[in-house]
Amino acid sequence: MNAEIITIGDEILIGQIVDTNSTYIAQQLNLAGISVYQKTSISDNRKHIIENIDRAFTTSDIIIITGGLGPTSDDITKQVLAEYFGAHSMKTHEPSLEIIKSLMQRIDIPMNETNRKQAELPDCCIPILNRNGTAPAMWFERNGKILIAMPGVPFEMKAIMNDVIPMLGNHFKLQTVYHKTLLTYGIPESVLAERIKEWETNLPKHLHLAYLPNPESGVRLRLSAYEINDRNSLIKEIDENFDMLRKILKSAVYGENDDNLAIAAGKLLQQKQAMLATAESCTGGHIAGMITANAGSSKYFTGSVVAYSNDVKIKTLGVNASDIKKYGAVSEQVVCQMAQGARIALNAEYAIATSGIAGPDGGSIEKPVGTVWIAVATPQKVIAQKHVLAKLRNVNISRASAIALNMLRLELINEK
Amino acid sequence: MNAEIITIGDEILIGQIVDTNSTYIAQQLNLAGISVYQKTSISDNRKHIIENIDRAFTTSDIIIITGGLGPTSDDITKQVLAEYFGAHSMKTHEPSLEIIKSLMQRIDIPMNETNRKQAELPDCCIPILNRNGTAPAMWFERNGKILIAMPGVPFEMKAIMNDVIPMLGNHFKLQTVYHKTLLTYGIPESVLAERIKEWETNLPKHLHLAYLPNPESGVRLRLSAYEINDRNSLIKEIDENFDMLRKILKSAVYGENDDNLAIAAGKLLQQKQAMLATAESCTGGHIAGMITANAGSSKYFTGSVVAYSNDVKIKTLGVNASDIKKYGAVSEQVVCQMAQGARIALNAEYAIATSGIAGPDGGSIEKPVGTVWIAVATPQKVIAQKHVLAKLRNVNISRASAIALNMLRLELINEK
Repeated sequence: MNAEIITIGDEILIGQIVDTNSTYIAQQLNLAGISVYQKTSISDNRKHIIENIDRAFTTSDIIIITGGLGPTSDDITKQVLAEYFGAHSMKTHEPSLEIIKSLMQRIDIPMNETNRKQAELPDCCIPILNRNGTAPAMWFERNGKILIAMPGVPFEMKAIMNDVIPMLGNHFKLQTVYHKTLLTYGIPESVLAERIKEWETNLPKHLHLAYLPNPESGVRLRLSAYEINDRNSLIKEIDENFDMLRKILKSAVYGENDDNLAIAAGKLLQQKQAMLATAESCTGGHIAGMITANAGSSKYFTGSVVAYSNDVKIKTLGVNASDIKKYGAVSEQVVCQMAQGARIALNAEYAIATSGIAGPDGGSIEKPVGTVWIAVATPQKVIAQKHVLAKLRNVNISRASAIALNMLRLELINEK
Repeated sequence: MNAEIITIGDEILIGQIVDTNSTYIAQQLNLAGISVYQKTSISDNRKHIIENIDRAFTTSDIIIITGGLGPTSDDITKQVLAEYFGAHSMKTHEPSLEIIKSLMQRIDIPMNETNRKQAELPDCCIPILNRNGTAPAMWFERNGKILIAMPGVPFEMKAIMNDVIPMLGNHFKLQTVYHKTLLTYGIPESVLAERIKEWETNLPKHLHLAYLPNPESGVRLRLSAYEINDRNSLIKEIDENFDMLRKILKSAVYGENDDNLAIAAGKLLQQKQAMLATAESCTGGHIAGMITANAGSSKYFTGSVVAYSNDVKIKTLGVNASDIKKYGAVSEQVVCQMAQGARIALNAEYAIATSGIAGPDGGSIEKPVGTVWIAVATPQKVIAQKHVLAKLRNVNISRASAIALNMLRLELINEK
C-alpha cells in the first residue's frame, strides 16, 4: 500500500520553514504499514496542485496534503479540492464552527467572518475535526482511493493524524512494514561499513539495511522488512541479527529506534540512582535542552548552569578566576573546574561541562573556531577531552553536545 | 529561472530524519533569483530516481540532488547518474582523494577501499570539492540544463552550495526575485488578516503577500516580487508598504527577515547596555539555547540556571522553600522569585523565568498539562503571566520560550 505526501505553500519552496509535518506523517504511515512512495512540496498554485493530485493517484492509493487551509487569501487548497472532487456547494460544519468559537473565546477574541468561513467545507468531503485549530481537515474519496487534506500547523496536524490512521485502517486492508533501528555513536560511517561488512553480506535477502548518519545522533543502522508473513518470527530474526551486531560494535551501540544519547545516559544514571547536572558555556543550554526534551528527565537531571560570562563561571560554578586569566576560559583547567562546580552547585553526582569557541568569531591560531573542551565529573574523578570541530556555530553546538553526552555514557558504562 | 530539489534516501520517506537540506538549498536558490518550482523526496531506487530527473528537466533548468552519495551499499545515486549521463568510466578525482586522506588522518583512522572509492567520479561530470566530507559533489550538463548532486550531510552540503551558487550564476543569466518579511508576534493569524485587510487590498498587484505562522516565531508576513525591472525602486516600494504595516501593528512587529525573538530582545538590551539571565524550569534550557544560537549573544546574555529540581530553585536561585510547599513550583510566587534570583545569581539587570507542566505527565485539574507561569524581572519590578498551552511537551517548551522572550521584549519597549 503506497501513499504520497504533498505539502502546499510557498514558504517551503522559498526555504522559509523546515517541513517537519511530512516527517511526522511519514512516520505514522510507516508504522501503520503504509509505504510513502514520494514526498512533494509545491506552491499555492491551482494548476500545480491539480497536476500533482492526478500524478499521485496513479502511483498511490492514499494522498495526504498539508497546508494551504489557512484563513487568508493565499490559501487556496480548499477551493481547489472542492472543484477537483466536484462539490456542489460549501456547507458549514457545525461541530467545527463550535470548536472555532471556543478557541476564539479562549484567546478572548470575537469571532469574525474569516473564522466562520473556515467551518465551511465542500459537501463532497467527510469532515475531520481539528480540536486544536480553526481549519478542519477533509477526507475525499475517488474510485476507492483517498485524499486527506489537513492544516499545516504541526500540533494541529499531529492530533488529526491520530484520527486519520484508524480511518485508513478501516478503509484499506493494510500490509505491514517492519523497521527496527540500532543506534551507534563514535564510529564514522565508512569505518562502520568496513567493520560490519561480513555481517551485512550474511543478512537474509528480505532484510534491507540502511545507514542513517547524523551529527547529533551518530550513525543509525536500520533493518526493514516488507510484505511480512510471520511477523513474530521476523521480529525474532531482526533481533538476532542486531544481537550479532551488538557483539561487533560493543559500547558504540547506545540504543534502539527513537532513543537518543540523552535517554541512553539517563537510563544508566537511573540504574545508579544518580543525578546529573550540566555546566555549559559554548553549548549554551543545548545539552540541558536535549536532556529535558525527554519526558521523565527530572528523575535523573537536577539542572544546568549556562555559564556564558566568566562572572558566572566564577560566581556560580566556583571556577578559579586566576585560572581563567592564566589558561583562558577554553581550557582543560577551566572546563574541569566547571564540571566539579556543577556537581556541587547543582547537587548532582555527575556533571558534564563544555567550554569552546562556537564561532563565527573568537577564534585564534592556537584556538581556532570549533575548539571545544568537554569534561565529565563523577564522584571519583574528572576526565576532559579536547575536540576541534567545524566552522559553523550550530554544528559546533550540536556536535559538542552529542560528544559530551556520549562521554558521560561511556564513563557510566566503564564504571560498572 | 526554475529549479527543482530532489532529496534521495529512504530515511526521509520513512520519517526517520527531518529534511533540513532542501530548506537551506531553497533559501540559497531564492536569494540568487532562482525560483524553486518543486521539492521532491524519493527513495534510493534507480527507476524512481531516473523518472524524477526526466520529469524535473521538463519543468526546470536546474536540478539539485542531495543524498545517496554515501560510501555504503544502499547509496546508488552516483552509479545511476553515471549511467543517466552516459559516463564511459569512473575516474579518481585526486584533489578529492587528498581531502579524504586528510579527513581520515584527522580522526586517526587508516584509509580503506571504501574511502578510496568515494573519490571515483563519472568522467562526464565536473567534480566539485567537498572540503568537509568524503563524498565529492558532481556537476552534470545536458542541453544547457544543469544537474548537481551533493552529499546529504547538512554542513558538507552547505559549504558546497557556496561554490555552486556562483557556478550557476556564471552558467545562467539569472532573473532576480526579491522577498522581504516582517515578523510579528502575539496576534493570531485570522485576527491579523482582519486587521490588515485594507492594507492588503491596497497592495500593488505585483507584490505577493504570504502569511507564515509558526509557534516559535509568530506570524511572519512576506512580500515577494518577481521579474524585477528596477530593483531599487522595488525595495523602496516594499519598505514603504511595510512602514504602513508597522503603523498598524505597532509593537507586535519585532523584526525583519531572519531576525528572531531572541535577537529582537538582544538588540533592545544592547541599547540599554543591560545584561539578561534566564531561570528555566519547564523550558529546560531551551530559552538559553534560543539566545545563544545567535552569534554575539554574549554581549547581552550572562547565562542561565536550569532549575529542574526544587533543590536548585532553592539553593542556586534562592527561592523560598516554604513558598514551593505552599503554592507549588508552578506558581506566580515561585516563578517571580526565580526571576529575581536569576538577576542576582547571574549578575544581570533583566531575567526571564519559567515554571510549568510541560507534560505528558504531572498535570492536575487545577494545573493541567500545558500550564506555564512566566516571569520577567527588571531593575524596577517583576511581572508574571499564566498561560495554558498545549498537550504536547515539545510544543509547550517552544511556545513558553517564545512567549517569555516576547514578554521581555515588550517590557523593554514599554520602559523606553
